[in-house]
Amino acid sequence: MGFRLANVAGRAALVAGDHYYDLQQASDGSLSADPMKALTQPERLAAVAATLAGRTPTGLLADVTLGAPVPHPQKSFAVGLNYQAHADEGGMEVPAAPLVFTKFPSCLVGPTADVAMRSDFCDYEGELVVVIGRGGKDIARADAWSHVLGVTVGQDISDRVAQFAAKPPHFDLGKSFDTFGPLGPVLVSVDELPDRDN
Amino acid sequence: MGFRLANVAGRAALVAGDHYYDLQQASDGSLSADPMKALTQPERLAAVAATLAGRTPTGLLADVTLGAPVPHPQKSFAVGLNYQAHADEGGMEVPAAPLVFTKFPSCLVGPTADVAMRSDFCDYEGELVVVIGRGGKDIARADAWSHVLGVTVGQDISDRVAQFAAKPPHFDLGKSFDTFGPLGPVLVSVDELPDRDN
Repeated sequence: MGFRLANVAGRAALVAGDHYYDLQQASDGSLSADPMKALTQPERLAAVAATLAGRTPTGLLADVTLGAPVPHPQKSFAVGLNYQAHADEGGMEVPAAPLVFTKFPSCLVGPTADVAMRSDFCDYEGELVVVIGRGGKDIARADAWSHVLGVTVGQDISDRVAQFAAKPPHFDLGKSFDTFGPLGPVLVSVDELPDRDN
Repeated sequence: MGFRLANVAGRAALVAGDHYYDLQQASDGSLSADPMKALTQPERLAAVAATLAGRTPTGLLADVTLGAPVPHPQKSFAVGLNYQAHADEGGMEVPAAPLVFTKFPSCLVGPTADVAMRSDFCDYEGELVVVIGRGGKDIARADAWSHVLGVTVGQDISDRVAQFAAKPPHFDLGKSFDTFGPLGPVLVSVDELPDRDN
């Protein structure tokens, strides 16, 4: 049993079904309302999530505007050209090594936020977003899941004019303008995934 | 009159000549020893710097190991292929638009820190580092200097194996391994530059 976490008006909230539960309230004040602080305590989030059935929901998800479930990560990066059809569409090769670029955390917004386009050549791509819970380096593949807090979905908005203005193309700025990283609605912990490896 | 700021064992220090002055002490406790907090108050740093002649130095710069003068910036990015000789050396064109890549802030270390190489193909390049003091966007060129806190020097260490493993080459990871961003010794405020435009 894990947890589902959302950001309601800047406050961490647990989610069950159609409802959300303010985390500070649902934890009887023992957990922070700050989404970034909440993320550092996955075991306690899961423990509180297990009690939700006996609690009164704070409200309906449908009635609120959600923020990014991870609003201020230390780093945020992405893998480009990560499937054949997209590489073909752009006339590019699928690289032998994952092509990693940065989406500066300042671009992250809630899942339904307006995107402020900067040119007439903006693309959007749906992404699986992996939220790292425990840092590390040179992590063995077999240990990878133990560093993952959960997953959510996001959009990778790209301004192709900015991206291809330099040669070789540079990805970071053209994908990091304000609002270019809609994230959410909900962070789902690894324990909640029916089959995490497929 | 501006200021020169260093990071001595994690504490902000003002610099004059060969000496450093612990900022918290030199400000009679009114300014934080945290280098990142110190940077947010440039006017007060300059005011304290103007009093150093009447104070006893904390010590000699030559006797301490300096940390990065800006140890935890929110963002850190760089411009690649920014002069002709370097582009020629790499067999690449100078791009029409500045080629921007990320050096993740986690790579920043002090100016004399050991660099932990990850392959036999590591390069080093000396860089002028511009420290942004006041944020903003779509800033007019004429207003640019008013957003700059100061300058320092840094090294851009690159693992070329990682950088060119993807196609197009990706810059961020190969330039952001731990210790790949030696920074400092000293942040020099804009007011201290003899001729900032040349």
